[in-house]
Amino acid sequence: MTVHAIEFPCRRGSILIEDVLTLEGRRDIFIGDTGLIEAFGEGIATSCRSNAEHRIPGADLIALPGLVNTHTHAAMSLLRGYADDLPLQTWLSEKIWPLEALLSGDDVYWGTRLACLEMIRSGTTAFADMYFFMEDAARAVADSGMKAVLSYGFIDLFDPDRREREIAATEQMIAAIRSMENPKVQPALGPHAVYTVSEEGLRWCAGKSADEGLIVQIHLAETEKEVTDAVSLHGRRPVRILDDCGILAPGTLAAHGCWLDQEECALLGARGVHVSHNPVSNMKLSVGRALPYPWLRDAGVNVTLGTDGCASNNNLDLFEEMKTAALLQKFSWNSQTLLPAQEALSMATTAGARALRLGNGTLAPGQPADIILLDLNAVCNTPLHNPASNLVYSCSGSAVRTVICHGDILMLDRIVPGEEEVIRKASAAAADLVKRGTGSA
Amino acid sequence: MTVHAIEFPCRRGSILIEDVLTLEGRRDIFIGDTGLIEAFGEGIATSCRSNAEHRIPGADLIALPGLVNTHTHAAMSLLRGYADDLPLQTWLSEKIWPLEALLSGDDVYWGTRLACLEMIRSGTTAFADMYFFMEDAARAVADSGMKAVLSYGFIDLFDPDRREREIAATEQMIAAIRSMENPKVQPALGPHAVYTVSEEGLRWCAGKSADEGLIVQIHLAETEKEVTDAVSLHGRRPVRILDDCGILAPGTLAAHGCWLDQEECALLGARGVHVSHNPVSNMKLSVGRALPYPWLRDAGVNVTLGTDGCASNNNLDLFEEMKTAALLQKFSWNSQTLLPAQEALSMATTAGARALRLGNGTLAPGQPADIILLDLNAVCNTPLHNPASNLVYSCSGSAVRTVICHGDILMLDRIVPGEEEVIRKASAAAADLVKRGTGSA
Repeated sequence: MTVHAIEFPCRRGSILIEDVLTLEGRRDIFIGDTGLIEAFGEGIATSCRSNAEHRIPGADLIALPGLVNTHTHAAMSLLRGYADDLPLQTWLSEKIWPLEALLSGDDVYWGTRLACLEMIRSGTTAFADMYFFMEDAARAVADSGMKAVLSYGFIDLFDPDRREREIAATEQMIAAIRSMENPKVQPALGPHAVYTVSEEGLRWCAGKSADEGLIVQIHLAETEKEVTDAVSLHGRRPVRILDDCGILAPGTLAAHGCWLDQEECALLGARGVHVSHNPVSNMKLSVGRALPYPWLRDAGVNVTLGTDGCASNNNLDLFEEMKTAALLQKFSWNSQTLLPAQEALSMATTAGARALRLGNGTLAPGQPADIILLDLNAVCNTPLHNPASNLVYSCSGSAVRTVICHGDILMLDRIVPGEEEVIRKASAAAADLVKRGTGSA
Repeated sequence: MTVHAIEFPCRRGSILIEDVLTLEGRRDIFIGDTGLIEAFGEGIATSCRSNAEHRIPGADLIALPGLVNTHTHAAMSLLRGYADDLPLQTWLSEKIWPLEALLSGDDVYWGTRLACLEMIRSGTTAFADMYFFMEDAARAVADSGMKAVLSYGFIDLFDPDRREREIAATEQMIAAIRSMENPKVQPALGPHAVYTVSEEGLRWCAGKSADEGLIVQIHLAETEKEVTDAVSLHGRRPVRILDDCGILAPGTLAAHGCWLDQEECALLGARGVHVSHNPVSNMKLSVGRALPYPWLRDAGVNVTLGTDGCASNNNLDLFEEMKTAALLQKFSWNSQTLLPAQEALSMATTAGARALRLGNGTLAPGQPADIILLDLNAVCNTPLHNPASNLVYSCSGSAVRTVICHGDILMLDRIVPGEEEVIRKASAAAADLVKRGTGSA
């Protein structure tokens, strides 16, 4: 690919992507210095052409809206491969939690930088995150140039004192992110799940969300145990508890949902809740059931895609996640036609963008210029009978060459500025964390 | 990566891979001009060092044995993305079979070249193939430099005349491949399945295999319908039919196996049959059940990995297949510990090499130098707490930089000689095939 007149890494400026293949055919795309798509069409106006500060010839590229990862714990990239193939409780209590207890803000910064680098390289422009040290995560997102909706994982374990501390930590994170005044980075509420947060805690999060228009991220119906425990401890299934606490609202994004029943899917649809499907994590942790996508779809629920954290995936490649979603739905619900390629692409683009309030996730005038450009001559795009099929079933994120987020070029022809430093610092942070964890520091 | 003194594409010559990370730690690997690994160790002999004609510094690389794809239909790469998300019978009878009926030898040559390019780029050095125009496929394999075991898909549809033609076609293919005198390319028998081949046809293949020491490739127990039809038509399950016809022997490689019962797994173990697990294809075609890996493992069956053809996958990346196998087994058999990363790696290396009689699939003196080198600094290998986990759960084939097959360098630092021509010719062949198929040529 030849790129004319782009200084890289470049400050925002108008960009013309010329004659690029889209799912609607070959188009020109003009991005204004506002970071929005200003024109999209076959042979756009000469004024756009002559005004463009930068040009990207699109002859050998496919353009897609940037992918949106609606559920992850980005800094867990430091734990990638640290512990796998273990029983769930052993994995959590002997491996993951002990190391998480030792995390520092600096660890979260470099872990989130590593996650952002991985997401950029595989074509993701925005994500929803829930973790700790979120001010450090926010700095990392800002330094990477991506968009993110960040929540502090609110876990009160049904203890009133702890609840007050979680409320204070949440308030502090929201204020800190707002003070950054970076429109790409938005705070959210992160009540962890019904088995870790009291009803009072859930109600506080619901109220805060309603008062301030904040997105709520929560884990929901991931395992059968979550459902049966809720029934035996609280006399209600998780969805009912959340509804009683006011959590089920159009600003809420619920992750997993494997053990939802049909009535619950209908309620989520009626309440306008968004759901994040995480098929790789669900399979790796053998949760025993796949998201009931047909029921959610029929109930009008906006179903999006997430990778979950790197400890339970173990990568952040949404191309892989699209394919696994399409495969798992077909396999689990016994249908060769369920979740076709075009629908999987929509989950990762339009549905994700809607859930995170980032426009409608399409390439159209007025939409944010969150655009990825893939290699048209890659083996995975050869032959190209049906681009949507190639993108979902054949490609991995490695086919992505260039990534633009709100008009900022984050990767150009597979080069991400500062990549070596991120790899080096994240590796060092991960090694040091394990040393501290095993007492051999 | 700096490569000293390698002319590329290079004729075979001795190669020293210096100080490369292996799953056993950092090692030097010396490949003689025989194409075999002659030395493997920490600091190998000075004589090897000074004799090496080529050197590859391994500091930033991970070395693995080349991956082995034990079930594919390589030339179906031309149909990648041509038809997906359809009911199985519609897909086969309205889309796949009509185009396959129009295939020419030239199509199969370029389709197989494309498949070989894709396999090389994703770290596969050998494969088992079953298709048509296998002399053209054999030429393509030879031109790519890979190793393959090739069978003509023997389908007599229970018709004696057709059986005679299939026998003749098989004999002709075997003679043609032998006449190439290329030790990397071996002929095999390819009775398609119990629902497409008569017992007489199966017996002929079994006899030919026994007489001439040829591998037998066959589809087995892929769908529930295959099993129930066999019982209703022939009064026996497919495994029993194959055993009655002498097909179950140590030279046989059976693909899919999803609907095997526990007793059948035991019989396959007793007979020394190898099984090829094809999880992506099985999920995409929603066959309703995952390979009963625990029963096969417990019966001592050598379980290998295959991608199946590109029309039902839709790629040939065995890294993706390793991960999907590990995920599907955990999910389907409800075990977080089933098929751990190291076992998935063994399926794709040692088990595959044994099934195709290509040595034992390890990096050891005396073994064929089928070696792949991956990028140690890729994001998917950061951090690197446990290399086997990163390779299976985080990486795709795109992490592979260099591929050596029997001492021949097929890809060096991601460059495969002739790649552009293969992409161009395969694209043209695919487009022309579809034009002929839709009558718009």
